[in-house]
Amino acid sequence: MSKGTLYIIAAPSGAGKTSLVTELVKTSRHLTVSISYTTRPPREGEVDGQHYHFINAETFQQMIGRGVFLEHAEVFGNFYGTSMEWVEEQLTQGTDVILEIDWQGAQQIRRLAPESIGIFILPPSQKELHKRLSGRGSDSANIIALRMAKAVSEMSHYKEFDYIIINDDFDEALLDLKAVIRSQRLGLEFQQEYRKDLLSDLLQ
Amino acid sequence: MSKGTLYIIAAPSGAGKTSLVTELVKTSRHLTVSISYTTRPPREGEVDGQHYHFINAETFQQMIGRGVFLEHAEVFGNFYGTSMEWVEEQLTQGTDVILEIDWQGAQQIRRLAPESIGIFILPPSQKELHKRLSGRGSDSANIIALRMAKAVSEMSHYKEFDYIIINDDFDEALLDLKAVIRSQRLGLEFQQEYRKDLLSDLLQ
Repeated sequence: MSKGTLYIIAAPSGAGKTSLVTELVKTSRHLTVSISYTTRPPREGEVDGQHYHFINAETFQQMIGRGVFLEHAEVFGNFYGTSMEWVEEQLTQGTDVILEIDWQGAQQIRRLAPESIGIFILPPSQKELHKRLSGRGSDSANIIALRMAKAVSEMSHYKEFDYIIINDDFDEALLDLKAVIRSQRLGLEFQQEYRKDLLSDLLQ
Repeated sequence: MSKGTLYIIAAPSGAGKTSLVTELVKTSRHLTVSISYTTRPPREGEVDGQHYHFINAETFQQMIGRGVFLEHAEVFGNFYGTSMEWVEEQLTQGTDVILEIDWQGAQQIRRLAPESIGIFILPPSQKELHKRLSGRGSDSANIIALRMAKAVSEMSHYKEFDYIIINDDFDEALLDLKAVIRSQRLGLEFQQEYRKDLLSDLLQ
C-alpha cells in the first residue's frame, strides 16, 4: 500500500475542473497535481513545466516506447501523458496526487491502479455548459458545436467514476471536492496504517 | 434503495461522541439522530423524548417481543433500543439518520442494514481518555477503572467500522464528521438516483 492516494479527476471541457483543482491544491496539505506531457502547442500564458511539459510528437512516441507513461491519450489530434515515475515518487512520500485526465486516461489508470479514486465533475445543465463553452469569445459556431458534442461524449463516461460533483456554485463544488478527499483519509484502512501507534496506545 | 443514509456512530465513553453529534446535527440539513429507548433512569437535565425515551424494563421486554427494535443492547445492566419504524420513516423521507450506539448494537444493524455507514470516534490517547473519564468529578477510582476497562473493550471493535475519527481537536473532528457525511451524498449511486433529471439533461 502506497502512502498517498491517487485521484483521477475528469470532466467535460467547461465544467470548471481546472479552476476547482487549482483552488483545491492551494488550500490542501499533502496534495499535488501531476503535470502532463503534451504535444499540443502552448496557449497564451501557459508556462512549460508549470501547466504542461511541452514536447514534440517524436519525443512523445519515444517516451511511449520506453514505458514512461502511466497513461496517455490523444485528444483533438494532440497527445497527453502522465509520468509514472513522478507519480510513484509522490505517493511513496505520502503526497496525494491528482491526475486531471479524460475518460480514456482514466480507464488506463483504473486498470493499473484500481485503488485510485475517480471523481467526475459535471456542469449543472446543457444550457449552462453551452454558455460556458461559447463564453470564451473568438470561436466559431462550428467549433462550439464540436466542443458540445465532445463534452456530451465525455460526460457519457461519468458512471466509471466513484464520485460525481456538480459544479453549479463554485464554492459548494469546492467544498464537495474537499469533503471527498478529507473523508478518504478517515477510512479504516488508511487510519490503521497511519494511526498505528495511536491505535496500539489506545488498546494496550 | 431508501432515500436517506443510515449512520452508525460509536465510541467509547469519553471520546466526545455526543457533543460532536449534537453540533453536527445543528449545522446539517437532512440529518437527524435517533432517540433511543432505555430502561436507565434519567440523569440530571435529561428530558424524556429528547435525550431518551425512558421506559421500564417490563415495557422494554414487551417491545422486544413485538419486534419493535432495529437493535437493542444491555450496557451496565440497563437496556437500550432503537425503534425500527421511526428510522425507516426518516430514511424514506430522505433524511439521514444517525444511530449513537455501541458495538453490540452496531453489529446487529450491520447485519440488518449492510449499506449503513459505520463511524467510530476515538480519543487521542489513553492518557487523555483517563483524564476525560476522571474529569466528571464525583466518581470513585474503582468506577473510573471500570470505565477505562469498558472503554478499551469498546475500542477493540473499531475495525468493524468504515471510518475512524480521532477526536483530539473538537473542531477538526467535527470537520471530519461533516466530510464523511457530505462525501456519501456525492457517491455515484447516490447521484445517479437523486440527480437523475440533471444527468439525463446533460446526456441528451
